[in-house]
Amino acid sequence: MTNLSTQPYKGTRDYYPEDKRIQNYIFSVWHKVSKSFGYEEYGAPMLEPLEVYAAKSGQEIVNEQTYSFTDRGDRVVAIRPEMTPTISRMVAARRQELAYPARLYSVANFMRYERPQRGREREFWQLNVDIFGADGSNAEAEIIILSSYIMKEFGAKSADYTIKINNRKLIDFTMKQYLGLDDGQAEAMIKLFDRKDKISSQDFTDQAGEILGDQAETGLSKINQLLSVAKIADLPAEIRDNSSVEEISQMFKLLDQSGVDNYIFDITLMRGFDYYTGMVFEVNDNHPDNNRALFGGGRYDGLVGLFGAEPISAVGMAPGGTMMENFLAVHELLPKLRSLTNVYIAALGDTVAEANKIASQLRAAGINAELDFSGRKLDKQLKVAFKKEIPYVLFVGEEEVKTGVYALKDIINSNDFKLDFAGIVDQIKE
Amino acid sequence: MTNLSTQPYKGTRDYYPEDKRIQNYIFSVWHKVSKSFGYEEYGAPMLEPLEVYAAKSGQEIVNEQTYSFTDRGDRVVAIRPEMTPTISRMVAARRQELAYPARLYSVANFMRYERPQRGREREFWQLNVDIFGADGSNAEAEIIILSSYIMKEFGAKSADYTIKINNRKLIDFTMKQYLGLDDGQAEAMIKLFDRKDKISSQDFTDQAGEILGDQAETGLSKINQLLSVAKIADLPAEIRDNSSVEEISQMFKLLDQSGVDNYIFDITLMRGFDYYTGMVFEVNDNHPDNNRALFGGGRYDGLVGLFGAEPISAVGMAPGGTMMENFLAVHELLPKLRSLTNVYIAALGDTVAEANKIASQLRAAGINAELDFSGRKLDKQLKVAFKKEIPYVLFVGEEEVKTGVYALKDIINSNDFKLDFAGIVDQIKE
Repeated sequence: MTNLSTQPYKGTRDYYPEDKRIQNYIFSVWHKVSKSFGYEEYGAPMLEPLEVYAAKSGQEIVNEQTYSFTDRGDRVVAIRPEMTPTISRMVAARRQELAYPARLYSVANFMRYERPQRGREREFWQLNVDIFGADGSNAEAEIIILSSYIMKEFGAKSADYTIKINNRKLIDFTMKQYLGLDDGQAEAMIKLFDRKDKISSQDFTDQAGEILGDQAETGLSKINQLLSVAKIADLPAEIRDNSSVEEISQMFKLLDQSGVDNYIFDITLMRGFDYYTGMVFEVNDNHPDNNRALFGGGRYDGLVGLFGAEPISAVGMAPGGTMMENFLAVHELLPKLRSLTNVYIAALGDTVAEANKIASQLRAAGINAELDFSGRKLDKQLKVAFKKEIPYVLFVGEEEVKTGVYALKDIINSNDFKLDFAGIVDQIKE
Repeated sequence: MTNLSTQPYKGTRDYYPEDKRIQNYIFSVWHKVSKSFGYEEYGAPMLEPLEVYAAKSGQEIVNEQTYSFTDRGDRVVAIRPEMTPTISRMVAARRQELAYPARLYSVANFMRYERPQRGREREFWQLNVDIFGADGSNAEAEIIILSSYIMKEFGAKSADYTIKINNRKLIDFTMKQYLGLDDGQAEAMIKLFDRKDKISSQDFTDQAGEILGDQAETGLSKINQLLSVAKIADLPAEIRDNSSVEEISQMFKLLDQSGVDNYIFDITLMRGFDYYTGMVFEVNDNHPDNNRALFGGGRYDGLVGLFGAEPISAVGMAPGGTMMENFLAVHELLPKLRSLTNVYIAALGDTVAEANKIASQLRAAGINAELDFSGRKLDKQLKVAFKKEIPYVLFVGEEEVKTGVYALKDIINSNDFKLDFAGIVDQIKE
C-alpha cells in the first residue's frame, strides 16, 4: 500500500495550536461584539438541499462553486457555501414563535470550490450577524455600526479601512429608469459594475458600450458622470429624487450620530448575491498591501418568504476569518498569543504519582497543568516546555517531594523560585 | 415555484439560541477540562480524501456511512465521519517539529449516514482529545482520568456512569491463542462480542457456535467462562500470564491513585474502529432511561505511520454533544441557561438617538444591550424582552432623557428601579 498524503485537502487549512489561537482570538472578538448588541448565537447544519441556493444565491455560486452531491438517500445536497439561506429557512420555520426583532449570529465553516488564493480558501470560517423583522434605516445602521465596532475591537483605526455603501433599489432605478436598460441589459451592467475594479477602464468602457448597444453614446456619458459621484448630493437630479436616496441619507445620519466616520457613498458597489433588496455595504482594507474587500452585507427582505412564510425583512453581514487575519497581519494588529497551558510539570526520578497529585491540585485551583511522565532527563523536559511556549516549569524531584518545597522556573522572565504549593499557585496566577 | 422546505436536512438539527446555549455549555466544559490537562486546541478541514478512512476506520463506516463524493477536480473525498485519521495525518505532517508528548484537542462537527435515532444524528459534534508520543499506561490512564474529570465537571457522580476497560492485545491473544481461532474466525468473533448486548444470549451462543465450527464444545465452554470474568484475577491462568494483563493492572493502579472508582474490567468490550492496538475503554450511562455507551476511546499506535512517517504512539477519546446532552437531561444535570443579553432597551417616543447613545455606553461598560428602535407601545416591547428571557428592561422615554434618571425593570425578581447611568450599570452587573 502506498502511503497516504499528509497534505490537507486542496484549498483547506490545518490549524495547529499556534494557528488555532489566532483563529480563536478572531472568533472571540466576533462573539464579544455580537453579544454586546444583544445578538444570540445559533447553530445550523452543514448540509442543505441544493435548491435552497439555486433560488437566490447567484448563478456563479450554484453552478461553479458549490460542493454538491447526491446522498445515499437520493437527496441532492450541498455543503453550505454561505449562511443566509439557512438562517432564513430557520426563521421561516419558527416565524410565529420568534420575538422580533430577532437578532441572531453564528460562527461557522463553509465551503466553495474556488481557485485558492490569498485570503480565499475552499473551506472558510465566517461570522454571520442578521437582524430579522426590522424595517427601516435603524436596522441597516446597526449592522454597519456593529461591523465598525468589530474593527475597533480588533484595534483598527478609522483610517485603516473604508465602508462603501450603496442601495439595490437605487441601483435598480439607475439601471432601468435613468439608463433606460431592459432586464437583461441591467443584469449585465450590474455584473460589469461589480467587476469594475478588476478590469482596465478601457475594457470597462468597451463592455459597457456593448451592453448599451445603440444607446451607447448617451449611456456612456451618463455612466461616466455616475462614476464621478462621491456623495449623494452629486447625483443627477433625476436619481436624487428617488425614495431610496432619502433612505440612504437617513442611514448616513444614524452613522454620523454613532461616530462612524469612514464610510463613503459608492454607486458602483453591487455585492454579488441576488437576494439583496436594499442597502448594501462593503468594508475595504486601505492598506496598500491588502487593498481589497474584507467583508460586506446588506438588506435581503425577500428570502424568508421563499420558504412559504410571510416575507420578513432582514439585514445582515458576514466577515470571514482568513480575510480578517490578513487585515490584522498587514496592520500589525495581531496580538502575541502564547499557549494557554500555564505550567509544565517535569517529574524527575520516581515521582510520577506525586507529580500527578500536584497536577490535580493545580487543576482544582484553576491552573492548566501539563504533566511530563516520560522520566526523561531534565534538559529534555525543559526543551519541550520551551517549544510549547508554556510560561512556567515546575520540577518534581524526590527531594522536592520530601520537603514539599518545589523549584518553579518562570521561562518568560528567566526567574527561579523555591515555593510550597500555595506559593506556586500564587506565582502562576499572578 | 413551489416553496422550499423549512425542515433541516434529515438527521441534522437547527440550533436555535436556547438549544445553542446548551451546546455551548457542553462545549465550555470540554474546553475547560481539556485545557486544564495542558491539551491545546487545533482545527482541521471538513473534507479528507476517502482513502484516509478506507485504511483503518472499519468497513461499516466507509462503505455505508460516509458522505463521500467526487469533487469538481475529480478527487474522491468524504465529509469527515471522525477525527482520528485527520489528527494522525496532521501529526505525521509535522512529525519532526512537534514537541512530545503532543497533547491536542478539538471540538468539531462530523457526518455519518446512519439511521437517525435517540442520541445519534447524521451531523454531530464531538470533542477529540489525543496524546501522541507517549507509550505506556500513564498516557492511557490520563485519557481515562480526563474523561472522568469531564463527567465530574458536568456534575455527574461516580454511580451515574461506569467506565468499561479492555485491551486489544488481550482480545487478540484470547481469540487466537486461548480460543485457537484463525484470523477470519477471530474477526467474526470480535464482531459478535461487540454486538453481545444487542442480541439475546441464545442468539449469541448460536452464532458463537457457528464461528467455532467443530471446536464449538470446548470453545463455548471457554467463552462462557470468559463472560463471567469480573476482574483480572478471575481470568483463566493461560490468559493471565499475557503481558497485556500486566499493562492493564498497571493502569488500574494509576486510576486508583487518581480516585477513579467506577471502572470495571470487561473482556467483551471491543470498540468498533480497526485502528485500536491496545487499551480500549467506554463510558456507559447507568441511568435506566439512557442505559448505553456515551463515548469511548483507546490506544491506536499504528495510524500515524500510515502517512509515511515513523509510527507514533497515540491514545485518544471522543465524546459527542447529543449523547452528553441526553446524559445530562436524564440525570437532571442541565443548568438553567438564560439569554446572555443583559438588558433590553425600550425606546419610547422620539428617543431612538438617545437610546442608541445609552446602548453604546452600556456596551462600553461591558454590558450586552439590545435596543428596540421599533417605536412600538411599551407593553409590546416588554413582551419581546420576556420572550427572549432577558433579565432587565431599561425604559428610555422623553421624560427620562430630560432628567437623566431611567426606569429599570428587573424581570427575574419583579423589581423596579429609578436610576442614573452609573446606577444602571451597577444594578445590571450585580
